[in-house]
Amino acid sequence: MTERVVLAFSGGLDTSVAIPYLADKTGAEVIAVAVDVGQGGENMDAIRQRALDCGAVESEVVDAREEFATDFCLPALRANALYMDRYPLVSALSRPLIVKHLVAAAKKYGGTIVSHGCTGKGNDQVRFEVGIGALAPDLKVIAPARDYAWTRDKAIAFAEEKRLPIEVSSKSPYSIDQNLWGRAVETGFLEDIWNGPIEDIYDYTSDPAVAREPDEVVITFEAGVPVAIDGRAVSPYEAIIELNKRAGAQGVGRLDMVEDRLVGIKSREVYEAPGAIALITAHQELENVTVERDVARFKKGVDQRWGELVYDGLWFSPLRNALDAFIDDTQKHVSGEIRLTLHGGRAVVTGRRSAASLYDFSLATYDSGDMFDQSLAKGFVQLWGLPSRLASARDARLG
Amino acid sequence: MTERVVLAFSGGLDTSVAIPYLADKTGAEVIAVAVDVGQGGENMDAIRQRALDCGAVESEVVDAREEFATDFCLPALRANALYMDRYPLVSALSRPLIVKHLVAAAKKYGGTIVSHGCTGKGNDQVRFEVGIGALAPDLKVIAPARDYAWTRDKAIAFAEEKRLPIEVSSKSPYSIDQNLWGRAVETGFLEDIWNGPIEDIYDYTSDPAVAREPDEVVITFEAGVPVAIDGRAVSPYEAIIELNKRAGAQGVGRLDMVEDRLVGIKSREVYEAPGAIALITAHQELENVTVERDVARFKKGVDQRWGELVYDGLWFSPLRNALDAFIDDTQKHVSGEIRLTLHGGRAVVTGRRSAASLYDFSLATYDSGDMFDQSLAKGFVQLWGLPSRLASARDARLG
Amino acid sequence: MTERVVLAFSGGLDTSVAIPYLADKTGAEVIAVAVDVGQGGENMDAIRQRALDCGAVESEVVDAREEFATDFCLPALRANALYMDRYPLVSALSRPLIVKHLVAAAKKYGGTIVSHGCTGKGNDQVRFEVGIGALAPDLKVIAPARDYAWTRDKAIAFAEEKRLPIEVSSKSPYSIDQNLWGRAVETGFLEDIWNGPIEDIYDYTSDPAVAREPDEVVITFEAGVPVAIDGRAVSPYEAIIELNKRAGAQGVGRLDMVEDRLVGIKSREVYEAPGAIALITAHQELENVTVERDVARFKKGVDQRWGELVYDGLWFSPLRNALDAFIDDTQKHVSGEIRLTLHGGRAVVTGRRSAASLYDFSLATYDSGDMFDQSLAKGFVQLWGLPSRLASARDARLG
Amino acid sequence: MTERVVLAFSGGLDTSVAIPYLADKTGAEVIAVAVDVGQGGENMDAIRQRALDCGAVESEVVDAREEFATDFCLPALRANALYMDRYPLVSALSRPLIVKHLVAAAKKYGGTIVSHGCTGKGNDQVRFEVGIGALAPDLKVIAPARDYAWTRDKAIAFAEEKRLPIEVSSKSPYSIDQNLWGRAVETGFLEDIWNGPIEDIYDYTSDPAVAREPDEVVITFEAGVPVAIDGRAVSPYEAIIELNKRAGAQGVGRLDMVEDRLVGIKSREVYEAPGAIALITAHQELENVTVERDVARFKKGVDQRWGELVYDGLWFSPLRNALDAFIDDTQKHVSGEIRLTLHGGRAVVTGRRSAASLYDFSLATYDSGDMFDQSLAKGFVQLWGLPSRLASARDARLG
Repeated sequence: MTERVVLAFSGGLDTSVAIPYLADKTGAEVIAVAVDVGQGGENMDAIRQRALDCGAVESEVVDAREEFATDFCLPALRANALYMDRYPLVSALSRPLIVKHLVAAAKKYGGTIVSHGCTGKGNDQVRFEVGIGALAPDLKVIAPARDYAWTRDKAIAFAEEKRLPIEVSSKSPYSIDQNLWGRAVETGFLEDIWNGPIEDIYDYTSDPAVAREPDEVVITFEAGVPVAIDGRAVSPYEAIIELNKRAGAQGVGRLDMVEDRLVGIKSREVYEAPGAIALITAHQELENVTVERDVARFKKGVDQRWGELVYDGLWFSPLRNALDAFIDDTQKHVSGEIRLTLHGGRAVVTGRRSAASLYDFSLATYDSGDMFDQSLAKGFVQLWGLPSRLASARDARLG
Repeated sequence: MTERVVLAFSGGLDTSVAIPYLADKTGAEVIAVAVDVGQGGENMDAIRQRALDCGAVESEVVDAREEFATDFCLPALRANALYMDRYPLVSALSRPLIVKHLVAAAKKYGGTIVSHGCTGKGNDQVRFEVGIGALAPDLKVIAPARDYAWTRDKAIAFAEEKRLPIEVSSKSPYSIDQNLWGRAVETGFLEDIWNGPIEDIYDYTSDPAVAREPDEVVITFEAGVPVAIDGRAVSPYEAIIELNKRAGAQGVGRLDMVEDRLVGIKSREVYEAPGAIALITAHQELENVTVERDVARFKKGVDQRWGELVYDGLWFSPLRNALDAFIDDTQKHVSGEIRLTLHGGRAVVTGRRSAASLYDFSLATYDSGDMFDQSLAKGFVQLWGLPSRLASARDARLG
Repeated sequence: MTERVVLAFSGGLDTSVAIPYLADKTGAEVIAVAVDVGQGGENMDAIRQRALDCGAVESEVVDAREEFATDFCLPALRANALYMDRYPLVSALSRPLIVKHLVAAAKKYGGTIVSHGCTGKGNDQVRFEVGIGALAPDLKVIAPARDYAWTRDKAIAFAEEKRLPIEVSSKSPYSIDQNLWGRAVETGFLEDIWNGPIEDIYDYTSDPAVAREPDEVVITFEAGVPVAIDGRAVSPYEAIIELNKRAGAQGVGRLDMVEDRLVGIKSREVYEAPGAIALITAHQELENVTVERDVARFKKGVDQRWGELVYDGLWFSPLRNALDAFIDDTQKHVSGEIRLTLHGGRAVVTGRRSAASLYDFSLATYDSGDMFDQSLAKGFVQLWGLPSRLASARDARLG
Repeated sequence: MTERVVLAFSGGLDTSVAIPYLADKTGAEVIAVAVDVGQGGENMDAIRQRALDCGAVESEVVDAREEFATDFCLPALRANALYMDRYPLVSALSRPLIVKHLVAAAKKYGGTIVSHGCTGKGNDQVRFEVGIGALAPDLKVIAPARDYAWTRDKAIAFAEEKRLPIEVSSKSPYSIDQNLWGRAVETGFLEDIWNGPIEDIYDYTSDPAVAREPDEVVITFEAGVPVAIDGRAVSPYEAIIELNKRAGAQGVGRLDMVEDRLVGIKSREVYEAPGAIALITAHQELENVTVERDVARFKKGVDQRWGELVYDGLWFSPLRNALDAFIDDTQKHVSGEIRLTLHGGRAVVTGRRSAASLYDFSLATYDSGDMFDQSLAKGFVQLWGLPSRLASARDARLG
C-alpha cells in the first residue's frame, strides 16, 4: 500500500508547493490538514480546495477556534503565562492543538508520516515533534525545510517547473505567525537589535501614540475564566475576540524583546497580543484580591515553570498536567469583576470586586471601624526577626 | 543617668509632638534624627531646628541620598525587584537605611531606646524593628502609635495643651511616604477597592493621557549599574533623579494594586515610581541580551525571593547577602546601552546594544550568513522529548 | 450560661491538673477530649474516667488511628515529607487531627474556648492555634503553660492542695510525644548538642548495632499508597503498624538533629520513626522508577514546601491543598512493588518492579537488544551545550 | 601539517586500541592523555608507556588528585550535592577536570580534535563535549563508540589484526568508573531492576552486615571545608582518602538506584562513595547548627539545581558560577566539629560544636536559665495564621 503523509497545511506558497514536493520525494500520498486557530486571512474552504488542486489526495480544514480558546488559551491565562515575563506564548499554544488534529487525521486516513514546515533553528519544530512523539510515537516526521534544506526559492522554482496553480506573489518582508491569542512578526531589519520596530509591522494593534478616547471595560471571571464583559455573558473565544478588538484599538499588547529559544540561541521577536495582555492583567489583579499570600508566592514559580515548559514544546508532558492540577486548585475562588481602562497602549486596572475577596476592609482601614488588633504585632515582629537577630549577633561576635 | 531615646523624626506634626510626649511618657531625653532619602519637601535645617524647638536635646539631619541610591536602590535594580510583579519596594528600601542612621546616633549619643512612628498593622514596624534587632540587639524599641495607641487626635490635643510651636494644619486626606525611588499614597476613599485613583493623588508623575511629545532616552549600564544617560556620565543618584523627572513627565510608573502585607492582611496601595520603572524595564531587557538562559531562568526565582525578603523587613539578613552574591555574579556582563521611548505612561525598549551580547546575528538570522547547523536539531528534538514520549506511551498502555 | 472550655487531654499529670485549674481560673466548665493517634500507653477508657474524676463535666475519647493513618500520614508519605531532609513530621501531623476533634467537641458541647498544654516556645502551639483559627475562628484559646506560666511544679502543688485523685510519680527525665508515625524525645542532657543519645531514650527501635538476622519485606503500592506487605493486603494503618514493628526491630529510623523551629530558634531533637522511614524510602525509589524526570525534579521543591508548611503549622491552608493537588496528580502511576532489606539500622531497596515503570530495558541495556539510537546524541549534545558555549566564548572575548 | 587528535586515555583495552584506530580512521597523529583522579589501579608510568607502545606520538599523565579534591569534590560537598537525593556525582565531577587537561594538551601539542570513549546513550559524552565546547569551541570531537559504532569486539579483532602489544583478558562482567569521590558499577544482571546487588561488585566498601567494632571520628570544618580529622590537620585530598578508608571499612556509602539520565532514559546504577557520604552527612548537620533558617531553606533549592546542572554536564556554565557565589556566601560560618559514628553501613552524627553556632542553649532549654520570652508567642501565632484564617473563613462563607 502507498504510504501516506499528513501535512500541516497553511494555504501559503510553501506548504502548497510542499504537497507535490513531498509526494515526489517520498512516493507517498499527501493528506493536507489546515487548522483554524483564529489566524484570520483566507477562507478555509479556499484553502481546502487549493490543497486538492496541488495534488493532495485528501484535504481537511478544522475549525478549532473555540477549542483553542478553551483548552489552550484559558490554561495559559490561569497560569498568567508570560515567557520571560513578557511573551504570552502565542505560537507555543497553537502547535500542540495542530498536532492533535494532525494525529487524528493520520489515524483517520492511515497516515504513517507527519510533515510540518518548520525550520531547524526555531522552537516550533520541537513543539510539533515532541507533541507527535507523545500522542503517536509510531508516526515518522519529515520537516522539509530542515531535513531537505527546502527553501522558498527552491519552492518557487519547483512550482514553476511543475506549473502548479499557485500565485507567486512578491515575497513579504515579514515572517508572521498569528492566531486568536496574538501575532508574532520577524523580519530582516529587526535582526539588528538596535533597530526599533516600525508602525508597518503591526496588524492587531493601532498606534498607541495616537490620541483617542479611553475605553473602560469590566471583565467578570468565574474560577479564573472570563465569563462576561460589561455584564454580557461571553464564551472564552468571544472574550478574547472582543478584547483583541477593544484593547487592540487602544494599542495595548505590543511587545518587543530578545528571547531565549529552546535550541540555545537568542532571537529578537516582536509580538502583538492585545486580548491576552488585557486578560492576564485583569486576572493577575483578581488573583491579588482572592488568592492567599503563600499560595500567590508559590504560584509565581509554578506559573514560570508552566510558561517555560509550554514554550519549550512540552505541552503534552506529565509535568504540565501536574502544574495544571496545582493551578486549578488555586483558581476555585478567582471569581469577581475587574474594571480596566484601555488607553494609550496601557491596560490599567481601576477597580476590583469579588464575593470571594480576601481583602477585608475592617482589617485594612485606618479609619474608624478598624478591627485589627495591633497589640499582636509586637510579639510577631520579635519572633519574625529572631533568626536574623541571632545570626547578626553571631556575625558581630566573630567579627 | 537619664535614659535617652533616639526618635526617627520626619518634621511633621506626629513626630514633632512625639518629642515631648516620649519625654513625658518615659522620662528619657529625646534625640531627633531625620534622614534625607530624597523625599523632598522641607529644608532639612528647618526640620533640625523644629526638633530642638519641641524639646529634643540633640537633633541630627543626615543627607543619605547618594547612599540610598547606591546601597539600596541599585541592589533592587539589579534584582529587578518588583514585589508581586508590580511594586518596586519604595518604603521597604528606605527603612533599613534609616535604621542604620538611628543605630549610629544611638551609639553616638548614648541612646538605649529607639522610637518610630509606625502603626501596628503595617510593614514598616517590622522593617524598623527587625533591622534594629539585627544591628543593635540591645536597643529597646517604642512605637507610640502601636504601643501607646497614640493617634493624631491625641497628638493635636497634646500639642495644644503643651503649647508646642507647631502649626496644626487641616489634616491632609492622604497618608504619603516618598523617597528617591518612588512614592506611596494611601487614603480613605481608596480603601474601597472598586474606586479608581483620581489625578489629585499623584505628584511624581503627570497624567499619561495628556498628549505630548515622546522622550527618547539611552541608558548605559556597566555590570548592571546605570552609568550614563544619553552619553553623559551620571552617578546612580543622578540617574534616578533624571529618570524620575523625564519618565514622570510622561506619566510612567503609576501603580495601583491590592497587596499582601507581611502582617497577614491585604491592603490597597497606589504608588508612583517613574525612574524605578524606567530603569528596571531597561535593565531587564539588557539582561535578556547578556545573561545566559539557565541563569536567567534561575534568577527569576532569586529576584522574587529578594523582593519578598526585603518587603518582609529582612534587609539585614544572611539570606539577602547570599542572594546578592548570586545576583552580583550574574551582573558581570550586564553592560551596554538600552534605548527607551518614554511616552503616554509607557517606557518601551526600542533598541539594545552591548559588547557582551549573547545575541549572535549569524546564528539568529534567517538571511544569508546563517551559521546555525540545522542538522543538529533532529537529534536534539528526539532526546529532548524522550521522557515525555515514554510517559505518554506508558499512560496509553495503562489506559 | 456557664462558659465551656474544651481541653486537649492526654491523661497525664499536667492536663489532669489542668481540669480543675482551668475551671478555677476561668469559671468555665471543662470538657476533656483525648484523641488516640496511636500513641499507645494507657487504656483510653481509663483516661476518659480520669478526666471525669478530676472534674470534667464531659469526657470524650476518640479513636482516630485509621483516620490519622489515611488522612495525615499518607499525604506525608506521598510528599516524601522530611523536614530538613530528616524529620518525618511526627508531631506536626497529629496536631491538626487533634484540632479537628477539639473543634467538633466544641460544637457538640457548646464550648467557646479551647485549651492545650503547649508552651510558648515550641511549634505545637502554632499548629494548634492556627488550626483552630482556620476551622473555628470564633473560638478563644488558652494555653496555660504559656498564658499563665503554669508549670509542672505548680501543677503538683495544686494537685496536692485540691487533693486530686492523681498519682504524682517522680518526674521522667524525658519529654515525649509519640504517635503512629513516630516518636520524639527531648531531655536535658541532649540540650548539650555535643552529647550523643543513649540507648535508654529509645522505645520504638532496637539497638541497630546488635547482631541479628536481616528482614526482607516487599511493599506494594497503588498510586502512592501502600496496599500490601509481602503480598498480604493491608490498610494504611496496618502497613504503618507492621513496618514500625519490623523496621523498629532492626533499629531503622533513629534520627538526631538540630532543627529550625518556626518560633525562630534552633533546637536539638531525637526521633524514632521506623515505619515512616521504611515507607518513605520505598516510596521514593518507586517514584524514581515511575515518575517522569521533569516531574521528579519539580516535585522535590513541592515536597520541600509541603514539609515546611506542615511543620510550620499550616496544615489547614490553601497552599497545602494546592500542593496536594499537584502531588496527587504525580501519584497516578506510582504503583508497583519495592523489596526492602531491613537490617542494622538501614532500610535498603534491593528490587523494584512496576507495570507503570518508565525504566525501559531495551533503551537502558548495553547488551544486545539495545534500541537506543545513539546517532541522535550528537545533535542533542551540541544544542544542549550551546548557551554555555556562547557564554564562554563571550567571557573569553571580554577577558 | 598532519592533524593531531588528543585522546582521553585510560590505559585499558578500549582506549589502547583506539590509538591506532583513530590514526587509521582520521589520518591524524594521536596524543594520549591520562588523568589521575584517584582511580587507583595501574601505575601511571606504565599507562604512559602503553600509549606510546600503541603508537601515540605523545603521551602525558597528569596527577590531578589534589586538584580534583579541592576544585571539584569540595564544591560538591559545600553544595551537599546528591543527585536525586542519593548520588554524589562521582563521574560527573571528574569529567570536567579531564576536559580541562585534554584542552591544555591540545593547546600544548597543537591538537585540533579531542576524542573520548563514551557511548551515545550516557551522560559522560555530554559532560565531555559541553565542557570542550565551553573551554575550546574550535576543537572538533570524535567519540568512536558513538560516531563509528566502535565496540569492544571490534577493538579486540582490530588489536589482533594489528598485533598490538595488548593483553586481551577475558571481559570483566562489570563496567566501572571510579575516582577519589566514589565508584560506579554497571553490569548486565543489574539491568533487571528487580535483582539486588551482590557482594562481589563492591570494592570501596566492606559488607555492612558483618559484625565489627564501630569507628568514631571527629571532622573539623572551616567555612565548609574539612580541615582536620580527629584533631590532625588534613588537606581535602587526605580527608577524602581517610574517610574512604574508615567509612568504607564500615560499609558506609553503598547506593543502589534507578536514575534519570540527561539523554532521556532511566538507568539502574550502583555506587559506593564512603568518604563522600560521610563528609556530606557531617557537613549537612554542621549547616543545621550554623546556617540561618531562611538561608537553609533557600539553599536546598540551590543545592538541588547545582547537582542537576553538574549531573547534566554543565560544570562550565555561568549558572554554576552564580550558584557557587551563593553557596560560598552561606559557608562563611560553617565551621566547627562534627562527631560521627561509622558502623554497620551507617554514618551517624552524635555530636556537634561550633564557635559559630546559632543554637542558643539559653533560648532552647526547658530548664532553668530559659531566656525565651514566651509572651511574644501569642501575637506571633495570631498574625502567622491570619492569612489562612481569612481564607478558611472565606471558604466557609462561600460553602
